[in-house]
Amino acid sequence: MLEKVDLSKEMKKEEAKGKLEKMGVELSHLQRECKAAGIPVMIAFEGIGASGKGVQINKLIQALDPRGFDVYTVNRETEEEKMRPFLWRFWSKTPETGRIAIFDRSWYRRVLGDRFDGLTPKKQIPFAFADIHSFERQLTDDGTVIIKLFLYISKKEQEKRFKRLSENKETAWRVSKEDWNRNKKYGEYLALCDEMLEQTDFEFAPWTIVEATDKEYAAVKIMNVVIRRLKEALVEKKQREAMEERIAKEQAENGKIEEKSQTEEYKIGVLSGVDLSKSLSEKEYKHRLDQLQKKVEILHSELYRQRIPVILAFEGWDAAGKGGAIRRLTSKLDPRGYAVCPTSAANDIERKHHYLWRFWNKMPKAGHIAIFDRTWYGRVMVERIEGFCSTAEWKRAYQEINEMEEHLVNSGAIIVKFWLQIDKDEQERRFRARMEIPEKQWKITDEDWRNRAKWEEYEQAVDEMLVRTSTTYAPWTVVEANSKQYARVKVLETVVEAIEARLKEQK
Amino acid sequence: MLEKVDLSKEMKKEEAKGKLEKMGVELSHLQRECKAAGIPVMIAFEGIGASGKGVQINKLIQALDPRGFDVYTVNRETEEEKMRPFLWRFWSKTPETGRIAIFDRSWYRRVLGDRFDGLTPKKQIPFAFADIHSFERQLTDDGTVIIKLFLYISKKEQEKRFKRLSENKETAWRVSKEDWNRNKKYGEYLALCDEMLEQTDFEFAPWTIVEATDKEYAAVKIMNVVIRRLKEALVEKKQREAMEERIAKEQAENGKIEEKSQTEEYKIGVLSGVDLSKSLSEKEYKHRLDQLQKKVEILHSELYRQRIPVILAFEGWDAAGKGGAIRRLTSKLDPRGYAVCPTSAANDIERKHHYLWRFWNKMPKAGHIAIFDRTWYGRVMVERIEGFCSTAEWKRAYQEINEMEEHLVNSGAIIVKFWLQIDKDEQERRFRARMEIPEKQWKITDEDWRNRAKWEEYEQAVDEMLVRTSTTYAPWTVVEANSKQYARVKVLETVVEAIEARLKEQK
Repeated sequence: MLEKVDLSKEMKKEEAKGKLEKMGVELSHLQRECKAAGIPVMIAFEGIGASGKGVQINKLIQALDPRGFDVYTVNRETEEEKMRPFLWRFWSKTPETGRIAIFDRSWYRRVLGDRFDGLTPKKQIPFAFADIHSFERQLTDDGTVIIKLFLYISKKEQEKRFKRLSENKETAWRVSKEDWNRNKKYGEYLALCDEMLEQTDFEFAPWTIVEATDKEYAAVKIMNVVIRRLKEALVEKKQREAMEERIAKEQAENGKIEEKSQTEEYKIGVLSGVDLSKSLSEKEYKHRLDQLQKKVEILHSELYRQRIPVILAFEGWDAAGKGGAIRRLTSKLDPRGYAVCPTSAANDIERKHHYLWRFWNKMPKAGHIAIFDRTWYGRVMVERIEGFCSTAEWKRAYQEINEMEEHLVNSGAIIVKFWLQIDKDEQERRFRARMEIPEKQWKITDEDWRNRAKWEEYEQAVDEMLVRTSTTYAPWTVVEANSKQYARVKVLETVVEAIEARLKEQK
Repeated sequence: MLEKVDLSKEMKKEEAKGKLEKMGVELSHLQRECKAAGIPVMIAFEGIGASGKGVQINKLIQALDPRGFDVYTVNRETEEEKMRPFLWRFWSKTPETGRIAIFDRSWYRRVLGDRFDGLTPKKQIPFAFADIHSFERQLTDDGTVIIKLFLYISKKEQEKRFKRLSENKETAWRVSKEDWNRNKKYGEYLALCDEMLEQTDFEFAPWTIVEATDKEYAAVKIMNVVIRRLKEALVEKKQREAMEERIAKEQAENGKIEEKSQTEEYKIGVLSGVDLSKSLSEKEYKHRLDQLQKKVEILHSELYRQRIPVILAFEGWDAAGKGGAIRRLTSKLDPRGYAVCPTSAANDIERKHHYLWRFWNKMPKAGHIAIFDRTWYGRVMVERIEGFCSTAEWKRAYQEINEMEEHLVNSGAIIVKFWLQIDKDEQERRFRARMEIPEKQWKITDEDWRNRAKWEEYEQAVDEMLVRTSTTYAPWTVVEANSKQYARVKVLETVVEAIEARLKEQK
């Protein structure tokens, strides 16, 4: 893509100044409109070294209201960041609705600078491209505008700029040996850039190549692109809303025909085949529990030594015993190495982000265990059934979730997912028992009874979820939980097996 | 404090189990009550190596609802954390109302382990003690319960435990050379502990020494302390609320007598003496602006090289020109090295924290500039005048703010604070001008006019603020801002002088 670019383009200072001033007013206006419309914007600055990313970012932000944007400088991963999947630090920086996040270098480091420097393992390159694709697709599907700018200068121009910086004693420190090395190997680096641009020039998040020899010309081009993309986003947003309204209206008129034929497919589901009569004697339970807890304790320290992150996801009916199972699992563990992450309704800030954002933030670092009491699967259960998200949103969530889990596994994690299954009668017995014990009454709310009334709807949703998201890399385990003892032992056993299997592989 | 402690205390396993079970139910109940009452709780576990902090924390959290607590393991500072004042990482972890934060090692590292290992510079020790004092006082004043536990075992017991761990091949890696070294120098380490305990056993946040030879005994003692402190906090909270209600009632009856005698003191204020006729010719302005911007650019890169953090605080009347001054200051700067942090009303999450929390989170790292457009001084201006906080709260804020700024300066920061002063007529002219320009209309809201109506009240508050918080380490600069040109140049000049003064010192 780069060879055809004309790097001699330039613009007179006076002309550029006039244009930039006018466009600045327009951009400032668009920023306010995007804020009002709740559109999040990400602007990634990539390019050749010394192509002037800093200067250009500064020119751009002069026109913006500082209350509405953040600038992130993306350096090499810190020790802390190295212990997480590579997208983790970018997920945590995705902007909330109405805000702009500007990246000086970005997630593309992985396939550019870090790749060039040999920091990205070779076999990770294809994964990195796939992960970047799903990262950008998921965010744009959710309404984020992603603007990607590649600032381009020639080898000669780069050399000239390095020289100029080196000659001035105030700026000499900015040019490192590494920079000179990249100038020497300019052709090699450019080939990586070319491959990257070709592989990631997505329709939903296209690249703009900015001829950056002349700073004025580049500034005007950048401002132009940003303005155009924001305008488009505002129009699209309106169209999308109009369409959603129309669909909602049609559905209201035609009844839920489509909905029914959809669920037909999952009529004879996974859950109906579960044998809930399984149980354990008290003696057997105590014996195995004790054994397994000791085993998990030892494995935990082995995980820590080998720096393997573990993600345990707990889902199940209300009162199915998630809390109890988690407690039996953790009671012997070192609290420095695990965290229980309970999921309740999203708070104000979380609601302004992609629904996966808050889970990304909690993903464990290498060697640690994160135990989620309810999870990202809320999207395809409660949010689906209660209408907290649109049909299109929960339908695409299966793929999004699979992609997230794949990314986590590729970066080294073990994922174990539990569905704790009880029958409706057992749930009622437990609800009533809780209401009779004063210190457990708080556990039962009106909402629990309301959810219970929708048992069949949930059952269908769960069946579909189990089928669509049981992958080779992150399979579901359905736990027969009418007997709490049986369930707790099965959970512990499954965790032990998963960890042992991985440790065997590592050897 | 430690020499008189009887380390032979123990408890039978069965007895402890029964007690812990009963107390667990009580603790779980208290957790819910504290949540309802909005009380934040911090529990710091400190002590001798191998005294069983991990085990004890795990026992404690088994009784807690995982939705309501976080466990933080405090290791040596990461590279990122080293670039901030030492309390930064703890401020950012202070719990919101109703939550519990548990620390495995804590801010006391600074005066214990890190001091012992020579990581804390000697001359920083007295500052560290003072900073810890104000950290804990500020938080408890704000309603946080701080529970500090010191787990104590003898030299012999420590040796025994290290040996046991070393003998088992699964746990041998846990005992480092450093650990053995500490055992050898046990007496020395204990002396540090003793000094620390004496210096920081504050009435508002006392230490509890836990005899940790016997794990059962220790667990029961810890649970006991936590339960007692939470109960006390609930009672205090109720008393405090009752008292505040009474005071409010009395004040309503007796009028604002006390208020008046208070302001008397600040009648002839700083602001009335400001000469607002100062101005600059257009030519002079352009010339000096250009010169100063270039200077700041060079100094910025020098700050980066010397890793000096800079905090610039902008306050002033609405329409006094803060935004314009900030823009002139930053227009030539590298965006990788500065951030503009605008302050608006606190959001949901921020309101659940100490009012300084959100500012702490934004403090710049070494070598970076943070520019605050409105600041923590909102506490003693808008929050005071609009009644968003109690009289007691804004009155103690002066000291709290001074302490925060002192901590920042002690850790190497330059702080420059600007008050942009215009007169009431000039403000009206600017308000009206803004309303006439379509792209500036959004800048003027009804609130601006409402604030304007309280000009005299604000004037008094500002006068008091300027006097009470102009310190040698973080002085205020009042900027005559009726002429925008004059103000922008003075701001730039002041920043340049402050940085140059510091760089001179460093040499």
